[in-house]
Amino acid sequence: MELKLITKQQAQPPFYVGVDLGGTNIKAGVTDDRGQVLWVGQEPTLVERGPEDGARRIGALIRRAIQEAGLRPEEVAGVGLGSPGTMDIPGGRLMVPANLKGWEYFPIRDRVSEHCGMPVTFANDATAAAFGEKWVGAGQRFHSLILLTLGTGIGCGIIVGDLLLDGEHSHGGEYGHTVIDCRPDARSCSCGRRGHFEAYASATAVTKRAQEALAAGRVSMLSRRLAEGAKLEPKLIAEMAEAGDELSRQLILETAEYLGIGIVNLMHTIDPNGILIGGAMTFGGKESRIGRIFLERVKQEVFLRAYPAVGDTTEIDFATLGGNAGFIGAAGIARLEKLKKS
Amino acid sequence: MELKLITKQQAQPPFYVGVDLGGTNIKAGVTDDRGQVLWVGQEPTLVERGPEDGARRIGALIRRAIQEAGLRPEEVAGVGLGSPGTMDIPGGRLMVPANLKGWEYFPIRDRVSEHCGMPVTFANDATAAAFGEKWVGAGQRFHSLILLTLGTGIGCGIIVGDLLLDGEHSHGGEYGHTVIDCRPDARSCSCGRRGHFEAYASATAVTKRAQEALAAGRVSMLSRRLAEGAKLEPKLIAEMAEAGDELSRQLILETAEYLGIGIVNLMHTIDPNGILIGGAMTFGGKESRIGRIFLERVKQEVFLRAYPAVGDTTEIDFATLGGNAGFIGAAGIARLEKLKKS
Repeated sequence: MELKLITKQQAQPPFYVGVDLGGTNIKAGVTDDRGQVLWVGQEPTLVERGPEDGARRIGALIRRAIQEAGLRPEEVAGVGLGSPGTMDIPGGRLMVPANLKGWEYFPIRDRVSEHCGMPVTFANDATAAAFGEKWVGAGQRFHSLILLTLGTGIGCGIIVGDLLLDGEHSHGGEYGHTVIDCRPDARSCSCGRRGHFEAYASATAVTKRAQEALAAGRVSMLSRRLAEGAKLEPKLIAEMAEAGDELSRQLILETAEYLGIGIVNLMHTIDPNGILIGGAMTFGGKESRIGRIFLERVKQEVFLRAYPAVGDTTEIDFATLGGNAGFIGAAGIARLEKLKKS
Repeated sequence: MELKLITKQQAQPPFYVGVDLGGTNIKAGVTDDRGQVLWVGQEPTLVERGPEDGARRIGALIRRAIQEAGLRPEEVAGVGLGSPGTMDIPGGRLMVPANLKGWEYFPIRDRVSEHCGMPVTFANDATAAAFGEKWVGAGQRFHSLILLTLGTGIGCGIIVGDLLLDGEHSHGGEYGHTVIDCRPDARSCSCGRRGHFEAYASATAVTKRAQEALAAGRVSMLSRRLAEGAKLEPKLIAEMAEAGDELSRQLILETAEYLGIGIVNLMHTIDPNGILIGGAMTFGGKESRIGRIFLERVKQEVFLRAYPAVGDTTEIDFATLGGNAGFIGAAGIARLEKLKKS
């Protein structure tokens, strides 16, 4: 997703800085009051250096972002930091984030705040991404929306009006770990439990089903590519599906059906205006024929399973901000907090 | 659940009237500003007489409630009406309520308002019951809570702070119809779809499993009671479980396990402070040994399946207001709307 940057002259003050902290990279950017981006940059997280070093570098990245955007610190009305869970949002602390080993229980909000010299608003990264889509992405037309981020796992951010559904223990939207198959022999999830949505509709799940089919002797164009050294991942499966491989097409349609089940469960619980699908595993998204077929199959499954009152009215679409949703949403959440206070 | 009434002298003005419209009865009551009840009464719904007649009688019941409570109409600050779905809450209309045949698409809010001469706040009955528990029942200690009402189906009301999670199409909390078994041979739900939570943990589901076990030749004390003309229902199963029947005990424990699965899914999506279990099918509730064993088994399943961050912190308990939760909550929602406006 290419981001169109604006200049300070085109911008609507005041300005906000958003940071998206991930296990691999820290991405930061500056937005104006409308969510338009003036500058974006990133640097490696370097998890192994520990959280004190990380907080120091995040603080420096924030100061750099402000400078590169041509702003003075006093023109910045807020800083937002999105972080992977588990976390304690009101307490500003990490808890046990799976992708930040060694950073456990670190008071990251206040440490980053000390290093950048400004108050920091703390948010869950999936919620921040959902908020970004609502602010300036595919979710602008929705009062409430849910963003499902398909990757190694399944992220979920839920926004109802101005409410971020963080949950009372900062555990809202751990939706990848809800049961869609309650039988004792259901598929194992990466978390060690069984039958979770994530064990059926994530990249990990698709890859595992492909492996199982090939191990069972299923003929597929995938086999030759693997023999040539290709990596078994959704991208390869999408490529082979495009080339006409039946197994690959079947795996993609099956994944869409499981995704549809998870989406209907959300519609029957939260009933948002829209549900957006983002993340690395969208089989090419709207720009790709396979991606569009994937989305259509998701909608077919929803058509089949949902009550008409929601099934015929709730929009299902791809997210549009890609990897930028997180920092834009973090900036937007900082803005929301400021507006709520004033 | 016996309700303790207060006198006008003991009350804290202003006053509210709440109405709980059901397929069998219309229940109405008057509360003070703290949710204490001054008067409660009910009359049969008489669905077959149609919605115009119903609205007229609801209006008359509201006027009677005010009079019986010893109040003048101007001392009443709001009237709340809880109704079964499907419905259009912002529009004040019924849609296709399963238990009110012939009342489809009726503008009940405004018609009741005309008949009682006061503005009426319209709410979903399950949400109203949840709000009642939060206002004066078992949910008072929670910022956010979910009430699951176990009966023929499973009702679900979700409250997050001051937000009633009605959904964008008045379809929030249709949680009984979320999939917990996605396989093609999953149990059939009353709605015609398969694998729904309600098809595993409602009274209908328990009765069906009992029938299947008996039909398969399972020896049980239930058989003799059925031969004597008893009706196969959760009440009988609870009674036989108390008397030591193994099948009955097993059915109750299994039901608790399915309920636990549905509860964990809610914890991993909404993450409330508490989840309350109410309705007719609580196997006697807290006052009964079987009811307490049922609740403990629910908690055991949650202990097994939930992430510790929520599993070890979220309270699970029986609701306490019983059949009074609906009208009290409807009154409370009218009060909430008034407070939000002022």
